[in-house]
Amino acid sequence: MTPHLTPDPAKGAAVKAADRAHVFHSWSAQGLIDPLAVAGAEGSYFWDYEGNRYLDFTSGLVFTNIGYQHPKVVRAIQEQAATMTTFAPAFAVEARSEAARLIASRTPGDLDKIFFTNGGAEAIENAVRMARLHTGRHKVLAAYRSYHGGTNTAINLTGDPRRWASDNGTSGAVHFWAPFLYRSVFYASTEEEECARALQHLQDTIAFEGPASIAAIVLETVPGTAGIMTPPPGYLKGVREICDRHGIVFVLDEVMAGFGRTGKWFAAEHYDVVPDLMTFAKGVNSGYVPLGGVAISGEIAETFDQRAFPGGLTYSGHPLACAAAVATLTVMEEEQVVENAAHIGATVIEPGLRNLAERHPSIGDVRGTGMFWALELVKNRETREPLVPYNATGAAAAPMAAFGAACRKRGLWPFINMNRTHVVPPCNVTEAEAKEGLAALDEALTVADEHTA
Amino acid sequence: MTPHLTPDPAKGAAVKAADRAHVFHSWSAQGLIDPLAVAGAEGSYFWDYEGNRYLDFTSGLVFTNIGYQHPKVVRAIQEQAATMTTFAPAFAVEARSEAARLIASRTPGDLDKIFFTNGGAEAIENAVRMARLHTGRHKVLAAYRSYHGGTNTAINLTGDPRRWASDNGTSGAVHFWAPFLYRSVFYASTEEEECARALQHLQDTIAFEGPASIAAIVLETVPGTAGIMTPPPGYLKGVREICDRHGIVFVLDEVMAGFGRTGKWFAAEHYDVVPDLMTFAKGVNSGYVPLGGVAISGEIAETFDQRAFPGGLTYSGHPLACAAAVATLTVMEEEQVVENAAHIGATVIEPGLRNLAERHPSIGDVRGTGMFWALELVKNRETREPLVPYNATGAAAAPMAAFGAACRKRGLWPFINMNRTHVVPPCNVTEAEAKEGLAALDEALTVADEHTA
Repeated sequence: MTPHLTPDPAKGAAVKAADRAHVFHSWSAQGLIDPLAVAGAEGSYFWDYEGNRYLDFTSGLVFTNIGYQHPKVVRAIQEQAATMTTFAPAFAVEARSEAARLIASRTPGDLDKIFFTNGGAEAIENAVRMARLHTGRHKVLAAYRSYHGGTNTAINLTGDPRRWASDNGTSGAVHFWAPFLYRSVFYASTEEEECARALQHLQDTIAFEGPASIAAIVLETVPGTAGIMTPPPGYLKGVREICDRHGIVFVLDEVMAGFGRTGKWFAAEHYDVVPDLMTFAKGVNSGYVPLGGVAISGEIAETFDQRAFPGGLTYSGHPLACAAAVATLTVMEEEQVVENAAHIGATVIEPGLRNLAERHPSIGDVRGTGMFWALELVKNRETREPLVPYNATGAAAAPMAAFGAACRKRGLWPFINMNRTHVVPPCNVTEAEAKEGLAALDEALTVADEHTA
Repeated sequence: MTPHLTPDPAKGAAVKAADRAHVFHSWSAQGLIDPLAVAGAEGSYFWDYEGNRYLDFTSGLVFTNIGYQHPKVVRAIQEQAATMTTFAPAFAVEARSEAARLIASRTPGDLDKIFFTNGGAEAIENAVRMARLHTGRHKVLAAYRSYHGGTNTAINLTGDPRRWASDNGTSGAVHFWAPFLYRSVFYASTEEEECARALQHLQDTIAFEGPASIAAIVLETVPGTAGIMTPPPGYLKGVREICDRHGIVFVLDEVMAGFGRTGKWFAAEHYDVVPDLMTFAKGVNSGYVPLGGVAISGEIAETFDQRAFPGGLTYSGHPLACAAAVATLTVMEEEQVVENAAHIGATVIEPGLRNLAERHPSIGDVRGTGMFWALELVKNRETREPLVPYNATGAAAAPMAAFGAACRKRGLWPFINMNRTHVVPPCNVTEAEAKEGLAALDEALTVADEHTA
């Protein structure tokens, strides 16, 4: 046991007690949660105060793309803190300039101007603001099975149950169906058919909403928490063409998919498509300091050249967050983190998951790319009935809770959403770590298998 | 000249060039701005690459309440970075627990649960979400002459021109007039009259909007960027009583006014009032790492005890931001920063500004408290015509631009909004620094005086 694993249950209890007394947690019934007190983290692992260590197959909330506590990024944060930890957004500051330059050097096409926010939700808010003012139109189309953030515009564009409680019928939010062959709403039986029908559905929706009333189409390049549905070849290119035909701004949300997660710098590269606006957060600095933003095309930036952009925030381009981004992007290049995500994804994770699917009847579908994979768990492979119902909680969700507990018992911290587990370790995960996680999943899936028919 | 002032114009030019090529700035026409490249900052000062040093009477955007680069907070950030720079929000983490505990120990009344966000806008979004779900009602009343943030709910509640371009008639946002005797909309001639009439106006508005349809009243305790209008005695207590009578949630926005700015830990203490929800950001950690949040009363927290709170964000309770908050609050206590703000405010800033008003005909009004002051500049003291029109830009705003340039020429960086300059230095400003700034203002105001009738 390494020194950092020395248990200290008394301290853990104190941390937990203060948490329970004073911390109000996201997306939770405060009286029903029992947050684990975490003592430390490094690379792909974290540990508690009891001496338990976990392999993190969640990357936090899919943001630690370079793992925890990368020494070069830690040092860059410390050095920036020593020189200029904060400064107001109206000024030119070295870390801010350099982060923008480096990000723009990686973004596809001419997405060369960077508007910085604190996270993904504000990025979506501002991308929609830009699209509306650029087009002079109001409606925004977004997909069911999506998540775009917790602020009002972002949550109203979201297409999962997290929207429901905040859905105030915000004017201009219109939902449509994106392709997802495994649960096709288009009665398709091949990827080609799903793609063609999804594009036809989008065209029909646009025709009936009125093309000239639509400012933007917002899509996650690869939807994340909603299920990691990699789009069929040709779909995003088709959306790009539809946008061009009608003067609609194409916004790709790469908050989760960007910065190496899919085995490319940006997921859009897989599909050879360049959006007009691209939102990012999370992987941009591995979540070491809150940062998000919008990468803006030349044409849209020009709209705000002589006319003020009516949006902003106190911490736009925060120097400490930007310094962490500069260091993260440098580390990702030096250590070939993106290439590693592609390589381990293709050679270890994908074959490993497909092997599990052969042996575990609870696995209904395996899908993903790079370090971004989903296992869809089902009661019955023929009917594809989910292992737990859509948006189930409490007793109805018990089979997934039991599966999660089985993972944790085996030292694996799993990402669980509804009837799915997502395999989303850091992009610099090693082959040995990936195999360790797959072995734990293998054992835990026997618990899920018990719930199959 | 100290070493940090060694000019390096070539580096400044490079920083500026990368900024102009890649950084998209808040609230600006990108082609019309000329951001100063800032080389460093310490305490109440910052400096550029040309060897010019400025006394910062803006505290960034009113957030560096302990000044730039406080060594104890820098060290705390470095130490947290070395141990746990980031961790997902669902866990109990020492820095998060301790920040929540310390903040709750300062907040008034039973505002003892802390929901952390990245900044003020998200804090308002989530406060409104809580109020709506707690009451089962939808409308939210907010004041003209206010700013609450740039995301959709926050900007639609805002009552200044920054709302206009984003005003999509969001359902449930209703504006009313808060008291402001200098430009009374109630034809009042005393603070007592203004207070009574503003409360009557609020009651009338509630009666006609329907009390049972109103979830919340949102007010900045002391409105900030909109003009630092300290409310008359009794107003906020009156609002509290109105809220209690109708079961309306009272939200005080202390994003700018909180954490020492007004010479108390929270501005609400001046008025002996406890809201149901209080939003904060900025001063909580002097903006060293992006952080904001909502302090929640026991009654509202209880609503989400067995029922999930349907809001959240990836970086809620970010460890690095929370560690900066713990260190900042500790420094503020150890160094009596709040007491200093009250003392220097009462003994140097207020008498100094009143003295300026005696000698400069362009000063129409002096108002504020602690380290939170506004000078309202006018063409004519009798008519109170503003020195520049409401929301003026370009040539129409030239007199204020000339005043700002005069300040900067004298080594003072001023906060300017419309026809006002706000005197908002760090809360730990020294007497000598405050006097230095007042002397520069004295000279610069002669430029404003030239535009008086």
